[in-house]
Amino acid sequence: MKKMNIGLIGFGNVGSGVVKILREKKNFLAEKIGVEINIKKICDKDILSKRNVSIDKGLLTSKASEIIDDPQIDIVVELIGGINPAKEFISGALKSGKNVVTANKALLAQNGKELFALARDRGKNIYFEASVGAGIPIIKSLREGLVANRFNNIFGIVNGTSNFVLSEMSANNRSFPDALKQAKEKGFAEKDPSLDIEGIDSAHKLIILAYLCFGKLVSLQDVFVEGISQVSLADVNYAKELGFEIKLLAIAKKDNNELQVRVHPTLIPRSHLLSSVSGVYNAIYVSTDLAGNLMFYGPGAGQFSAASAVVSDLVDLTQDIKAGLFRSTLNIIEDRSVKKLCRIEDIKGRYYIRFSAIDKPGVLAHVSGILAKFGISIASVTQKERSRSQIVPIVMIVHEAREKELRLALSEIDRLHVVREKSIAIRIEEL
Amino acid sequence: MKKMNIGLIGFGNVGSGVVKILREKKNFLAEKIGVEINIKKICDKDILSKRNVSIDKGLLTSKASEIIDDPQIDIVVELIGGINPAKEFISGALKSGKNVVTANKALLAQNGKELFALARDRGKNIYFEASVGAGIPIIKSLREGLVANRFNNIFGIVNGTSNFVLSEMSANNRSFPDALKQAKEKGFAEKDPSLDIEGIDSAHKLIILAYLCFGKLVSLQDVFVEGISQVSLADVNYAKELGFEIKLLAIAKKDNNELQVRVHPTLIPRSHLLSSVSGVYNAIYVSTDLAGNLMFYGPGAGQFSAASAVVSDLVDLTQDIKAGLFRSTLNIIEDRSVKKLCRIEDIKGRYYIRFSAIDKPGVLAHVSGILAKFGISIASVTQKERSRSQIVPIVMIVHEAREKELRLALSEIDRLHVVREKSIAIRIEEL
Repeated sequence: MKKMNIGLIGFGNVGSGVVKILREKKNFLAEKIGVEINIKKICDKDILSKRNVSIDKGLLTSKASEIIDDPQIDIVVELIGGINPAKEFISGALKSGKNVVTANKALLAQNGKELFALARDRGKNIYFEASVGAGIPIIKSLREGLVANRFNNIFGIVNGTSNFVLSEMSANNRSFPDALKQAKEKGFAEKDPSLDIEGIDSAHKLIILAYLCFGKLVSLQDVFVEGISQVSLADVNYAKELGFEIKLLAIAKKDNNELQVRVHPTLIPRSHLLSSVSGVYNAIYVSTDLAGNLMFYGPGAGQFSAASAVVSDLVDLTQDIKAGLFRSTLNIIEDRSVKKLCRIEDIKGRYYIRFSAIDKPGVLAHVSGILAKFGISIASVTQKERSRSQIVPIVMIVHEAREKELRLALSEIDRLHVVREKSIAIRIEEL
Repeated sequence: MKKMNIGLIGFGNVGSGVVKILREKKNFLAEKIGVEINIKKICDKDILSKRNVSIDKGLLTSKASEIIDDPQIDIVVELIGGINPAKEFISGALKSGKNVVTANKALLAQNGKELFALARDRGKNIYFEASVGAGIPIIKSLREGLVANRFNNIFGIVNGTSNFVLSEMSANNRSFPDALKQAKEKGFAEKDPSLDIEGIDSAHKLIILAYLCFGKLVSLQDVFVEGISQVSLADVNYAKELGFEIKLLAIAKKDNNELQVRVHPTLIPRSHLLSSVSGVYNAIYVSTDLAGNLMFYGPGAGQFSAASAVVSDLVDLTQDIKAGLFRSTLNIIEDRSVKKLCRIEDIKGRYYIRFSAIDKPGVLAHVSGILAKFGISIASVTQKERSRSQIVPIVMIVHEAREKELRLALSEIDRLHVVREKSIAIRIEEL
């Protein structure tokens, strides 16, 4: 049986998961794919710590060059994460004629353009199934399964930490800090959870998804990103009363030849399937021209879940290499109906708004007068219970408005003497 | 650019969808895949009726042999459905060295073993993405995306007609006949809907899914099949009160080295994502050893949805053919931990039961006494409102019991003088 050698850079959590699968399922995989996948070398800066898999010490090295420069290695798997030196390792591997598997969403989001171009120049492939949704085969589905489709939009719950926090708030009536503490205790949030909570990780994944669906690799600066740290339990509960759940959504949406690319807390109707995705689960909901609306759901993280995706990439590559094929199915072509990116200020949508005002006659007239001045009309309004401080929350849903006008209106409202806290606005998506 | 010729057998709804996509997206696809897919011949017994796509009359034929015997045709697409002559066409195509794409679940469920063996002998492939879940890339996901996984179970809502009927009953309080009438009016049910409603279509799809996950092509006779025509609105509503939805599930489940393969109405907890899959949508929920629990959701039928899947198969085949590759990723290997199929009588589970008894003291004691005699214990019981006829429904959930004992108990209970209608039992899955 043909043998293919792989070199693994990064022997951490996912890396050792990959090694474990390739060892324990060696025969199972060989029988399925007709190729033996052989781990020739493993590189990590730490080659001393024990992992949950026993390997021949001779496989270990702390020098990536021993993998990149080894002519017998066919595929390099990069699992160290971060930009440098991952970028140098991947481009080095491509330059020395190797195919690459990576789970590195941050790197692909930042430097994907040059890395994909380099791969194409060299007739090599970069596979990255584990970069979004871990073991959910979303990359393969968008690229191959839905190859004949054009995409209208993507709505993704792609960060398990944030979704866990929001689910805890909604289901167990916890405040944001309590829910985050819970996430940390359960190992669902890192010590410094800001990349997750502030939406950056979701934005990285969104850039990859939007690239697959629309053929444009937008830069992080062009993605509007708002995290969940400002979402209060009060808003979660008011939203619920109105029939919505609040989710951190990664959205890429084509509207009138403009592409919106944004990550932010979003009210979605409780009747929509995405609103039932709770805990650390991920789900990607896409709308297509032929296959309709589809959803892909599963755990968005986890050692073996991510390793499952890495191994599926390895298997695809073994088949490509065996056939001497640069798989053109992987060609990602630009959606030329997209003329430009839409700035957040120009996006039109409905909003949930909460004002904190003094409980005095005329307040609502003031507030709604300013909204009307900016052409914003109210769909529903509820004045909530009085609090001790005599400041009452006024909760509104407004009809479609442009973000620019909404912001102007809110800043004028917030200057009113009777309004005592910064008003809260959360975008609504009907999907 | 390399050109590949296809011959299409079956120019009905899905067939004309495929033709339309291949024509309207010719350049889009060619740019993606580096191959021009050319329709060389279209065969249908009716070549006179107008379709919603205009084609050169010279392409049409009513003789399948003009496709099967044409040495210039690389791929045959079979979309006529049914067993004969589809089986002869597919085996003829394989024998004359062509690859095959089909959406024919009934044929694969019945004759898959010999057709797959024939394809393997000839070094050709049969692709069948459209056979389950239309445009949902479930076949590709199970076979390629989850290639490293072993499967524990599959729970599928794979028949849109039945799911529409059950959703209508649940959401709009319609009786079964009313809901079915509604489905027919909307074009979601055929004039004779028995294949859908009685679970046969789901069973065909289940056989294909179980083959992919466990490597065993079970025969229809080995699948326990019960349709939804006996599900009453009363049971839908009582189930709801207890926190469940009733869905027609296609289940393949590994339990103690035995494989259960069954289709029947099932109570599933409303908190489970599958219970929120409503209308004509399909969803396949799988549990794996590495990637955890995953769900794939989308429209389960429709001209362009199914055609989207057919075209994705065509694209995969163009790449395989270009590379001269028989893709071993498609090797389906047997799960040897499965020792035998489990008979329905030996399956253990919880049940929802409804008795119709005369409203008289001592009835419950009688009924529960018989259940106890067979070792079946009651988890909850509710006596519902009296009806005019003085027959009251008694609704129960029982703890785990073996189907054999449950059936014996029910038949004894149904012989009681106080029990006036055949008792209803519906299986519960916790998932």
